[in-house]
Amino acid sequence: MTLSTSEHELICTLPRRVRDTAPLIHCMTNMVVSNFTANVLLALGASPAMVPAPEDAPTFAAIADALLINIGTLEARQLQAMHMAIAGASDAGKPWVFDPITAGLPFRLAAARELLALKPAVIRGNASEIMALHSIATSNSKGVDSRAKPEEAIDAAQALARSGKAIVAVSGPIDYVTDGTRTLTISGGHPFMTRVTGVGCALNAVIAAYIAGTRDPLLATTAALSVFAQCGAEAAQNAKGTGSFAVAFLDALTQVETLTAAAIG
Amino acid sequence: MTLSTSEHELICTLPRRVRDTAPLIHCMTNMVVSNFTANVLLALGASPAMVPAPEDAPTFAAIADALLINIGTLEARQLQAMHMAIAGASDAGKPWVFDPITAGLPFRLAAARELLALKPAVIRGNASEIMALHSIATSNSKGVDSRAKPEEAIDAAQALARSGKAIVAVSGPIDYVTDGTRTLTISGGHPFMTRVTGVGCALNAVIAAYIAGTRDPLLATTAALSVFAQCGAEAAQNAKGTGSFAVAFLDALTQVETLTAAAIG
Amino acid sequence: MTLSTSEHELICTLPRRVRDTAPLIHCMTNMVVSNFTANVLLALGASPAMVPAPEDAPTFAAIADALLINIGTLEARQLQAMHMAIAGASDAGKPWVFDPITAGLPFRLAAARELLALKPAVIRGNASEIMALHSIATSNSKGVDSRAKPEEAIDAAQALARSGKAIVAVSGPIDYVTDGTRTLTISGGHPFMTRVTGVGCALNAVIAAYIAGTRDPLLATTAALSVFAQCGAEAAQNAKGTGSFAVAFLDALTQVETLTAAAIG
Repeated sequence: MTLSTSEHELICTLPRRVRDTAPLIHCMTNMVVSNFTANVLLALGASPAMVPAPEDAPTFAAIADALLINIGTLEARQLQAMHMAIAGASDAGKPWVFDPITAGLPFRLAAARELLALKPAVIRGNASEIMALHSIATSNSKGVDSRAKPEEAIDAAQALARSGKAIVAVSGPIDYVTDGTRTLTISGGHPFMTRVTGVGCALNAVIAAYIAGTRDPLLATTAALSVFAQCGAEAAQNAKGTGSFAVAFLDALTQVETLTAAAIG
Repeated sequence: MTLSTSEHELICTLPRRVRDTAPLIHCMTNMVVSNFTANVLLALGASPAMVPAPEDAPTFAAIADALLINIGTLEARQLQAMHMAIAGASDAGKPWVFDPITAGLPFRLAAARELLALKPAVIRGNASEIMALHSIATSNSKGVDSRAKPEEAIDAAQALARSGKAIVAVSGPIDYVTDGTRTLTISGGHPFMTRVTGVGCALNAVIAAYIAGTRDPLLATTAALSVFAQCGAEAAQNAKGTGSFAVAFLDALTQVETLTAAAIG
Repeated sequence: MTLSTSEHELICTLPRRVRDTAPLIHCMTNMVVSNFTANVLLALGASPAMVPAPEDAPTFAAIADALLINIGTLEARQLQAMHMAIAGASDAGKPWVFDPITAGLPFRLAAARELLALKPAVIRGNASEIMALHSIATSNSKGVDSRAKPEEAIDAAQALARSGKAIVAVSGPIDYVTDGTRTLTISGGHPFMTRVTGVGCALNAVIAAYIAGTRDPLLATTAALSVFAQCGAEAAQNAKGTGSFAVAFLDALTQVETLTAAAIG
């Protein structure tokens, strides 16, 4: 499905708007990627903050413009604080983005089920993660192939979007973004993006920054994925390996407004 | 207020002394910046160590040459360990540096109030943080504009320094360092320093390394801020964005003895 | 002791095998180095995952190909999860690698004693760490000079290897790897490897990736140390400081199959 001219324009202007408005993003994420996530948001002009304490998390989630929930290194006390932060955000009418890294483990699957019921605005993961989440939502216990391709997850993504009234995005060589009715694709990126830890996790934080204050989360999510696809392609051009790629990726994000938009369909 | 020749000389020789003596810095800091903080200290020749467990923190704080306390991702159990570490450091006559990241949140504000009473040797933050801390110290509950300029915080910094018998530093385009009576300024740096997460947090760790074993914490703190200002300016020269800036910043710190000192007044 | 031709060949082919098989490494490590550890494993083609929760750690350790235990920022709850993960790995016949960072602290020393009894497949540390661990194993309470040279630790390494039926590696300008009977040396590397936080910690994760599924842990451990020595030397060639060194090190790991093997004796 192609974009209208005004839709394309919105997607192209969002990077500038994020830099101008510097949305405050409350990141409750895993310890492996917290530094990279913060640097990605800062490169784009957003304001990251991590407030893990249950005493302060709900207050801060209400102040922030959007909330990120990532269960990649989930522990019981963090899950408790996440529930409280989501309640704080929801009461204040702020959206939250869900990054479901279950790895098929019981504690995390149970946590994902609980969190899914709390109405994330956007869910993004790889094909396996989205299919696993759809299985949870439908109590379908059949296993998920951890090497599923994005194409295989489209049906699950659309169903999940409809049942959860959420935007669902599936990352891969081609990305898919859907509201359950309309499905957009984004091309670009580079395989190095899967070989630097936290690129996907940081993308979810960027989605949070892009949907903050928007009335069109489908297009805002698409814009965030487009930024990553174009900056990934740009960064790969002169990279000698994953080290220089990660550096060039942050550089590309710093000057994203000067890059050509990724191919969106 | 200008520096005497001997003061200027001391500031210029401190980077070499830190590299030669490799002070052991006990960092109790936030999870987002712990890696960058360690790499900054290592680049300068200091020895970072993180010992979060309450069972070991006070023992280690007494062994270390200085202690860093940063409440950026504070949780209750970490606060408990911080109290114990400060007690260990204080009993052993070792100084500690306080990085107050309160974000106006109740749990952190209460923690900052408790910690402030434990006599940090140096406090460094941005203008808003220093003004917030001064409000705490004076039970002044009026709000603090989070975009306060360093100039607006000078009075608060000086009052805080006098009441706490501490050195207080305010970071910004121009930095201010005061003992309550004398106030020095440092020029230099680059806006990218606010767009790489943890630059300010790492600076506080460097202050800890510079004040370790010194008899003049005002000049030692000034020297640390000068190192950051000059390395930030150096790193920005060829940086294409925040990614290459962070890399070049660590490179500049590695060879800081070869750089020209920042402008101090 | 020199390598046979077939042994040398095995060591040279392991980087390719790791990339082709992408072993899943469960990393229970310290918070300072978790990001760098993951990026090192990804650069080599292995699959890192951190699962800290005690509810999931033993399940995941049994699924993973090898387990890494690093006590660099140990806390009580993490130690409990480590015990459970080791049990899960051991029941499933999966090896685990031990990174003993005791810093001479009581809580960590007691933890190291407990963990040592659980039969790690490989132990790697610097000379002081290996000598401290040997002291623990033999209830020898005499202090360990934290600046011990690798040569001084050879006897301790060999004794520890024999008593623990483990491979023991000592890192330094020249590395030593022993099974208690045979001792190999690896030359190469660069002093910058001690000035980027987590290089040693990441090496232990790489050892885990290399011993996964091998029948010769002595050679597999040697291969991992050889990869680090050659990539460290390669990265240092154009590095201007520790920042660009770390980037170039990840780049070298990304293309390790194209580099000449380090000198092994």
